[in-house]
Amino acid sequence: MTTQQDCRALDAQDPLAPLRGHFNLPPGVIYLDGNSLGVLPKATAARVADVVVREWGQDLIRSWNTASWFDLPQRLGNQLAPLIGAGRDEVVCTDSTSVNLYKVLSAALNIAREDSPVRRRVVSERSNFPTDLYIAEGLCKERGLELVLVEPEEINVALTQDVAVLMLTHVNYRTGAMHDMAALTAAAHAAGALTVWDLAHSAGAVPVDLNGAGADFSIGCGYKYLNGGPGAPAFVWVHPRHADRFWQPLSGWWGHAAPFQFTPDYQPAPGIQRYLCGTQPIISLSALQCGLDVFTAAEALGGMAALRDKSLALTDLFIRLVEERCAGHGLGLATPRDHARRGSQVCLTREEGLGVRGQGSGAYAIVQALIARGVIGDYRAGSGAASHAGKGDGGPRLHKDILRFGFTPLYIGYEDVWNAVEHLRQVLDTGEWQRPEFNQIHAVT
Amino acid sequence: MTTQQDCRALDAQDPLAPLRGHFNLPPGVIYLDGNSLGVLPKATAARVADVVVREWGQDLIRSWNTASWFDLPQRLGNQLAPLIGAGRDEVVCTDSTSVNLYKVLSAALNIAREDSPVRRRVVSERSNFPTDLYIAEGLCKERGLELVLVEPEEINVALTQDVAVLMLTHVNYRTGAMHDMAALTAAAHAAGALTVWDLAHSAGAVPVDLNGAGADFSIGCGYKYLNGGPGAPAFVWVHPRHADRFWQPLSGWWGHAAPFQFTPDYQPAPGIQRYLCGTQPIISLSALQCGLDVFTAAEALGGMAALRDKSLALTDLFIRLVEERCAGHGLGLATPRDHARRGSQVCLTREEGLGVRGQGSGAYAIVQALIARGVIGDYRAGSGAASHAGKGDGGPRLHKDILRFGFTPLYIGYEDVWNAVEHLRQVLDTGEWQRPEFNQIHAVT
Repeated sequence: MTTQQDCRALDAQDPLAPLRGHFNLPPGVIYLDGNSLGVLPKATAARVADVVVREWGQDLIRSWNTASWFDLPQRLGNQLAPLIGAGRDEVVCTDSTSVNLYKVLSAALNIAREDSPVRRRVVSERSNFPTDLYIAEGLCKERGLELVLVEPEEINVALTQDVAVLMLTHVNYRTGAMHDMAALTAAAHAAGALTVWDLAHSAGAVPVDLNGAGADFSIGCGYKYLNGGPGAPAFVWVHPRHADRFWQPLSGWWGHAAPFQFTPDYQPAPGIQRYLCGTQPIISLSALQCGLDVFTAAEALGGMAALRDKSLALTDLFIRLVEERCAGHGLGLATPRDHARRGSQVCLTREEGLGVRGQGSGAYAIVQALIARGVIGDYRAGSGAASHAGKGDGGPRLHKDILRFGFTPLYIGYEDVWNAVEHLRQVLDTGEWQRPEFNQIHAVT
Repeated sequence: MTTQQDCRALDAQDPLAPLRGHFNLPPGVIYLDGNSLGVLPKATAARVADVVVREWGQDLIRSWNTASWFDLPQRLGNQLAPLIGAGRDEVVCTDSTSVNLYKVLSAALNIAREDSPVRRRVVSERSNFPTDLYIAEGLCKERGLELVLVEPEEINVALTQDVAVLMLTHVNYRTGAMHDMAALTAAAHAAGALTVWDLAHSAGAVPVDLNGAGADFSIGCGYKYLNGGPGAPAFVWVHPRHADRFWQPLSGWWGHAAPFQFTPDYQPAPGIQRYLCGTQPIISLSALQCGLDVFTAAEALGGMAALRDKSLALTDLFIRLVEERCAGHGLGLATPRDHARRGSQVCLTREEGLGVRGQGSGAYAIVQALIARGVIGDYRAGSGAASHAGKGDGGPRLHKDILRFGFTPLYIGYEDVWNAVEHLRQVLDTGEWQRPEFNQIHAVT
């Protein structure tokens, strides 16, 4: 059995432990929701204040030049690139993940269908992050194409000759299961399809090698594992072999070849810069840099490889401790045990019928009780046949309710894991989660 | 002749003068570029720091509820609505102007073409803000439609039976000329077309009455006259009669009817909320509120009507002083003298051939010399037959180089206008603008 002392010893030996000093963590909180909104880097408040007071307030319009606002999307893109296996000048940080998905999925469809007009399907995973499916649904509707949603194990079979694009989120938001990017990209290419990878739960969480996998298009989120701040601008990557083919549909001034010549006709910039559109929120974009700076600092301590080792150790420990200490409460494991298939989060399920008065699973109430103790994870509702409209290939599947815990090796330690599980054990053993205040669903998130 | 004393007296009597106290203006600067990037409200730095340190750093993911991040686009939209003649729950602040234009132009085309499929033209103004034309060009190309660019006086003739949408910027960015929104909307409707109005240079600058004009769609910018900060999120308005027809193409989670149910299929929210897409940059969005708060404070002093009176008085004064004191230097007036056709800026032209060694107009150098003296306006290059690709109805027209000066009655006073013109007079009379350092074009903006 693992003890609290063992966990303390692991922290004492952890070469990455100094990285926690780069963040402001609220006292009394064990934050296991960095997969939803990352924490505040210590440098961010001063950086944001400088952008507001000096760059904006004092230097005003001149900051487009003197503070290099114009280059910010590319500069941040270049800083992010090594985390995702992208090359220099292949990434820009801009807009939201959803907007960027619209750009790359449009471009991917244009390319795939120019090469082979019979390809009229987009294949994705039924439990892909919903906004990705919404964007794809909208684009398919607009163009008279078909969105086909399948289970993970059905993807290979679904890659038929009429598929234009395979669109997947690398690490599943509900389960933490990670796809084999290289294998699925190869399978898509073998079927003549292109790939779009959403790295929302991967960038900064697991090593990613877009170029190594031969991927085609990718997008991802700035405010989860990258700690860029609430709603931080997202990023977009396009393989250089595709970057100059077609406009992306959001053809705004920042993606123009000569943005300050104010010509009335659009000429797309070469390369990834054409994936920029309108003027970016400079304050939020500048904050993202402080999140990326921590990863730059982590390079000296082994970078993403070392972070990945620690992430797996943390999630292994959490799984083991939950199984050792919280048995008999109807919890199950939704996240793969296989390291090669696990992201940086652990998702527990709970059986239906175990909630108060036999209603529901009680998972929501357990998460609320943990939050009241300062252990912040989150809850994702399961899906039942009645609540979901099935699409594409045969209707809905059932998912259990989920208790979701993200483990960010930049600032989570081994004793944090111990303490989180100890709180979970107490919440379950004492029945604390059954209190009425934890069973009222009122929040928007 | 108007004297400096006269200007001081006007400032002393100005009931709006206290509003200047809401802003941090750099010492020694007369800022006449608020039409490009507004200045920093005094409240913004503290508000942004609170969002970063408390809402994000301390409350973390809980701020979606406790700080009402989720409602922010609607709350700011409701605060902005009175400035543009919009009703409650008709406006959201979100994304960039270009992205919002893509949404509303798509929706307008869907509606116009469902009602009458033969309508396959979008009419706009050749000197419309370029990014608007780029977005329209992209959408027309994607859908096999035609973008027709005309001069302002040709708009009525261009409104033929095959026009789907008339897309205009209310106040022209180059000349400050303002369209008659009600008359052009009526003309478009009489021809069976819908209207899309870009209020980038109108919102917070001139009174706007979208509902009064019966307009169909509108978008605008948060970082110019609204003082929301660099790249502040933009806004979008849709007339309620259209709001529930069609999805806008960027169908992301924030525009979903039940965004936290995580269903795999998209169901658009009713009303303007469906024009939201992905997660918004909360820090930048929060800063915008401080800009809007100044307009709320201005309500007690007469609101937009009083601001408009002062704006016209300032631009009248600037025109008069330039004509009285800077004659004989080849300057002309690009902005209409007619109040009904003037926005909140004055644009001067300069004759070609008056630059150093007879090259160009010298307008760029004059602006640079003014900036060196702390009088910040900007320069927009003229267009020649060689540099522009004509589109639509007969090719390019020539425009002269422009010296552009924005007058924001919230923080510009009458003596500021005097001093700006006095600097301009000195720059011209002494030939200071001919110095080599003012004639090197190196900046990106």
